[in-house]
Amino acid sequence: MKHRRLSERDLISDLEQRFRSSDDRIVLGIGDDAAVIRPGEVPLVLTKDMLVEDVHFFPDHPPELLGRKSLSVNLSDLAAMGARPRFALLGLGLPEDCDRGWVNRYFIGLEEIAAQYDVSLIGGDITASSKVTVSLTLLGEGRHITPRSGARPEDAIYVSGNLGDAAQGLHLAGRGVLWGADRSSDRFLKAYLDPVPRVDLGLKLAAHHAVTAMIDISDGLSVDLGHICEASETGAEVEASSLPISAELLQASPDAEALALHGGEDYELLFTVAPHTIENLTRIQLGCKITRIGSICEGSGMVLVDAEGRRRPLEKNGFQHFRH
Amino acid sequence: MKHRRLSERDLISDLEQRFRSSDDRIVLGIGDDAAVIRPGEVPLVLTKDMLVEDVHFFPDHPPELLGRKSLSVNLSDLAAMGARPRFALLGLGLPEDCDRGWVNRYFIGLEEIAAQYDVSLIGGDITASSKVTVSLTLLGEGRHITPRSGARPEDAIYVSGNLGDAAQGLHLAGRGVLWGADRSSDRFLKAYLDPVPRVDLGLKLAAHHAVTAMIDISDGLSVDLGHICEASETGAEVEASSLPISAELLQASPDAEALALHGGEDYELLFTVAPHTIENLTRIQLGCKITRIGSICEGSGMVLVDAEGRRRPLEKNGFQHFRH
Repeated sequence: MKHRRLSERDLISDLEQRFRSSDDRIVLGIGDDAAVIRPGEVPLVLTKDMLVEDVHFFPDHPPELLGRKSLSVNLSDLAAMGARPRFALLGLGLPEDCDRGWVNRYFIGLEEIAAQYDVSLIGGDITASSKVTVSLTLLGEGRHITPRSGARPEDAIYVSGNLGDAAQGLHLAGRGVLWGADRSSDRFLKAYLDPVPRVDLGLKLAAHHAVTAMIDISDGLSVDLGHICEASETGAEVEASSLPISAELLQASPDAEALALHGGEDYELLFTVAPHTIENLTRIQLGCKITRIGSICEGSGMVLVDAEGRRRPLEKNGFQHFRH
Repeated sequence: MKHRRLSERDLISDLEQRFRSSDDRIVLGIGDDAAVIRPGEVPLVLTKDMLVEDVHFFPDHPPELLGRKSLSVNLSDLAAMGARPRFALLGLGLPEDCDRGWVNRYFIGLEEIAAQYDVSLIGGDITASSKVTVSLTLLGEGRHITPRSGARPEDAIYVSGNLGDAAQGLHLAGRGVLWGADRSSDRFLKAYLDPVPRVDLGLKLAAHHAVTAMIDISDGLSVDLGHICEASETGAEVEASSLPISAELLQASPDAEALALHGGEDYELLFTVAPHTIENLTRIQLGCKITRIGSICEGSGMVLVDAEGRRRPLEKNGFQHFRH
């Protein structure tokens, strides 16, 4: 544990400096055996995602972007619950030969996203590990919780943003294409390396009681829609021609539809809306594109309907994220 | 991420079965994007400790005991805050070749300690990683928080239990001595592999306003007393002859005093008591041995006083836990 002894102290002081917070609910922040927060009145929503080098990201993932992404993927989970992010705990495992400059850049990225979404870092643990390992715990507050289990037959299925760009970015990163190499690949690399969590959208949808079920797309549309269907005990029909796929992806990849259906890493919100409340959606300033891609139906299977009306089973076997 | 695809589902269902909870504050437990709990009235205390294979434990650490220890070390942090444990989130990184039986035994150990201390597992993340990595987040409630920073000159320094047994256990484990090999080594191996968090002691001391500062001894007495001194801006004097060292350790190791001072992994509570409240301590049924080992003093240095009254600086350079 030479690593820990040498620098844990220094790194924790650095975090303390960077993440000083004026949130008066923080009784005790970074630096003691545990953090202490005053309870609020609103239910607490808690999530925890681990990111491991060589499993979830390549060693050459730019550290600022990894700092951003490690918080963003957790923010995306809270967004899917319709919760407002508040407090984070950082678990960070660093190889002994890890460069202080790398860590600094990681912290800068983490700080950017924390500031943008008003998240206070209140504690955590820094230790040695063979591969860079980030385990972030994020706490938020959710007055109107939107679980996966509320979808009902006839509900419309919506998704935010575009699908498949991140999977194309992962594909490029896997072939060694670096960020900044050229503008056309950067669009996809950005979607993969630096996804934007749909926090405001999640809050708005929840506050307006606009959705019956919601999840974020981390494993791919087919897998995550499958999670909603399973939790809600329903089936689903997806119209292939409705999938929101960027013109750039259609041009760049012959597999655009498959990337959109199974690619994963999108961190868009997938949600269902009851027929009688669809009109309400139009009255909310959502701040981003949403697209109706199909409907919830009776039964348990998922079906993909093509432009000619042909139906085939929508398999949940997504692409493997990383280790193909 | 083949590993994740193949078994994350199965492992999460297993956790759901094992950790069904009747706690009516859990609005949503394992299985959605995030967990949801109803807020209580008491401040929330949050801690997070990572344990990494080859850094914090040997690959042959019996999995049940690792399951127990991974929760116990977090319970120890809450104990040091005088908090009552309530909810846990489990982050678990498992190598692709990890055996299902190993995970099962890990879960059994985790379940034992969760049941014993009434902790509800409400969520987390299971993923692939090159080495077994456990990142547990534990939430508790603390009506009377006991930070590190409240020690004042003249306060008495106390420690629970015995010191150094766990460090001797680590020493034996590092030499390949296995659990169950013989009774004399098992005493030390147990202290290292399966430490007992002082949850009840922490709660009692906090409830009776008996302590001015408290910390748990994970890095070794010298390092952790140093943390109290730094946070409290004081110095300390420790009487070598007062250190609680087991007769077994004195017999087994010529370095017993050094192990007790610097060995770490004890997970005992180290706390300070104001002179006018020392008498109160005697009125509480503490349920375990506590020993007065010295006093807080002015200044910033730590001093070790031997049986002949000779004084020498008490260095904070603890042993390296694991990678010596």
